[in-house]
Amino acid sequence: MAAAAPPLKDELDIVIPTIRNLDFLEMWRPFFEPYHLIIVQDGDPTKTIGVPDGFDYELYNRNDINRILGPKASCISFKDSACRCFGYMVSKKKYIYTIDDDCFVANDPSGKQINALEQHIKNLLCPSTPHFFNTLYDPFREGSDFVRGYPFSLREGVPTAVSHGLWLNIPDYDAPTQLVKPRERNSTYVNAVLTIPKGTLFPMCGMNLGFDRELIGPAMYFGLMGDGQPIGRYDDMWAGWCIKVICDHLGLGVKTGLPYIWHSKASNPFVNLRKEYKGIFWQEEIIPFFQNATLSKDSTTVQKCYIELAKQVKDKLGKIDPYFLKLADAMETWIEAWDDLNPPTAK
Amino acid sequence: MAAAAPPLKDELDIVIPTIRNLDFLEMWRPFFEPYHLIIVQDGDPTKTIGVPDGFDYELYNRNDINRILGPKASCISFKDSACRCFGYMVSKKKYIYTIDDDCFVANDPSGKQINALEQHIKNLLCPSTPHFFNTLYDPFREGSDFVRGYPFSLREGVPTAVSHGLWLNIPDYDAPTQLVKPRERNSTYVNAVLTIPKGTLFPMCGMNLGFDRELIGPAMYFGLMGDGQPIGRYDDMWAGWCIKVICDHLGLGVKTGLPYIWHSKASNPFVNLRKEYKGIFWQEEIIPFFQNATLSKDSTTVQKCYIELAKQVKDKLGKIDPYFLKLADAMETWIEAWDDLNPPTAK
Repeated sequence: MAAAAPPLKDELDIVIPTIRNLDFLEMWRPFFEPYHLIIVQDGDPTKTIGVPDGFDYELYNRNDINRILGPKASCISFKDSACRCFGYMVSKKKYIYTIDDDCFVANDPSGKQINALEQHIKNLLCPSTPHFFNTLYDPFREGSDFVRGYPFSLREGVPTAVSHGLWLNIPDYDAPTQLVKPRERNSTYVNAVLTIPKGTLFPMCGMNLGFDRELIGPAMYFGLMGDGQPIGRYDDMWAGWCIKVICDHLGLGVKTGLPYIWHSKASNPFVNLRKEYKGIFWQEEIIPFFQNATLSKDSTTVQKCYIELAKQVKDKLGKIDPYFLKLADAMETWIEAWDDLNPPTAK
Repeated sequence: MAAAAPPLKDELDIVIPTIRNLDFLEMWRPFFEPYHLIIVQDGDPTKTIGVPDGFDYELYNRNDINRILGPKASCISFKDSACRCFGYMVSKKKYIYTIDDDCFVANDPSGKQINALEQHIKNLLCPSTPHFFNTLYDPFREGSDFVRGYPFSLREGVPTAVSHGLWLNIPDYDAPTQLVKPRERNSTYVNAVLTIPKGTLFPMCGMNLGFDRELIGPAMYFGLMGDGQPIGRYDDMWAGWCIKVICDHLGLGVKTGLPYIWHSKASNPFVNLRKEYKGIFWQEEIIPFFQNATLSKDSTTVQKCYIELAKQVKDKLGKIDPYFLKLADAMETWIEAWDDLNPPTAK
């Protein structure tokens, strides 16, 4: 049904948190050049990022973020790739694709270069099926369908809000697993896209991620990480827990699987352990919180859902650490800033 | 972790509902010959099934079932492959593999014959992870693990009760889909095994199915189908809904994905439509019933869970059609017959 993915050139922005390696853009040139790039520089604003000729882009550094958001810039992380979510906010497009600068073009098993963006667009343009599991995976994929026993009333599916892609070569492991298995590489190409069922949480990685900004954008907040914060590497996880609870509440779908990118280098596990270790404890309480979170019927928009969730974070996670009180405030600030830049009337 | 699957020759029976095609056994000979076969003849008991030399087997026809179960034989379907569940009951082994006689050995993408049984054993011997989704699929597979953000407290997993395998060539479609897409073939080899999350139902197909009889056997009842019944082709679906609710309640896991078999021929869609059409209506009420079914804390064994579920079927599905009253009684009879043949003291 979604065999040919329209390019959506005027409807999609690519958001990249800093580019330390210009080979990155050269390798993606055939796929990314038709699109507009939003680069959010995560470090020292006095450093210059040289973008090769031919790319249509806008670049924001910390000074720009402070200028645009004023005091509300406090909700955007500094010196951490979590700052990328500022790009989601300033975009005016329907779709966002975000990718890290150590992710290169992967090959499929036949040796053909994978057009990750095209697959994300396919995933986002065809429905999700969160209410019943289809054993042949995405029923909307060419050559597939719903299997015997799949209720007909559920076959229309629901709109897809998020497309979570995967990584060949360096898997997205936490620091303890990196330390224990320094040589493990992911070489298994799983030729599938599937809907994460309603009620099930997943670890959303921001390395290779597409989403529908109009459907779920205001919930795609990457939290407070990096400079001055007690935790790192949980930016995308935080967003993943929040968006899943809200998608489940609003009847939206989340897909995972294809496309793969080639993740070129493992980050330093010792540095990662320092960033992660509080998260490793905290997630044992955070995840049950999100598993049990329910939103009220009055929360009919992403913004309302997110504000309700922020209040629950303050009430229920604040006791873990004062960080969560600050994070809950930042969640509210994020929504205010989002609405400032995206006034409802403009829709 | 479960890279080498021990053969479990003394711990596994293969249950086959009738063999109409001796090529079937010849093709599987290298894989099945070491195991004991239980053949449950689904049709006329006067017909003889010739099993080629070299196989260790026992064969039951309707007369045998009537003799062994007496009046309780009423719970076993006649003239329908649903009768296979009698084989689960008479087995004394820990594991069961069941397969249809139109399923042949498939090849993986490298052209190598797939040892389906070995993969099912791998799936059953390593834990399931129903409480949180792992985006790299089965974390216990060689070369894989839990990804960043997977809670450490959930990494032990839970025992796996069921391994649901898939089909290349003819997909397991319902009659309407068969009619609409007569030429569709499944050629997508998805190299993955995954746990069906807790709280999510799936359409369990009995064509290529492994399970742990000690963990879930008494719930693997294939219902009342075929001769004298208003419905067919819902035997495995019924069992799938029941086992999933009970696995979720008892903290057991259900996996789906690898291994593939080659499903050689599509059954007649017109015949199938006649068997299925009541099920197509009924499943719209049955599935919400199972999605909302909860079992009490007192139901601590599969038998107790199943009896509790039978009572709920009688109370809540009886109003759809008197068939469900009969089915609920048969569910209770099945448990009585199971306990007769598998007295608790024998464990």
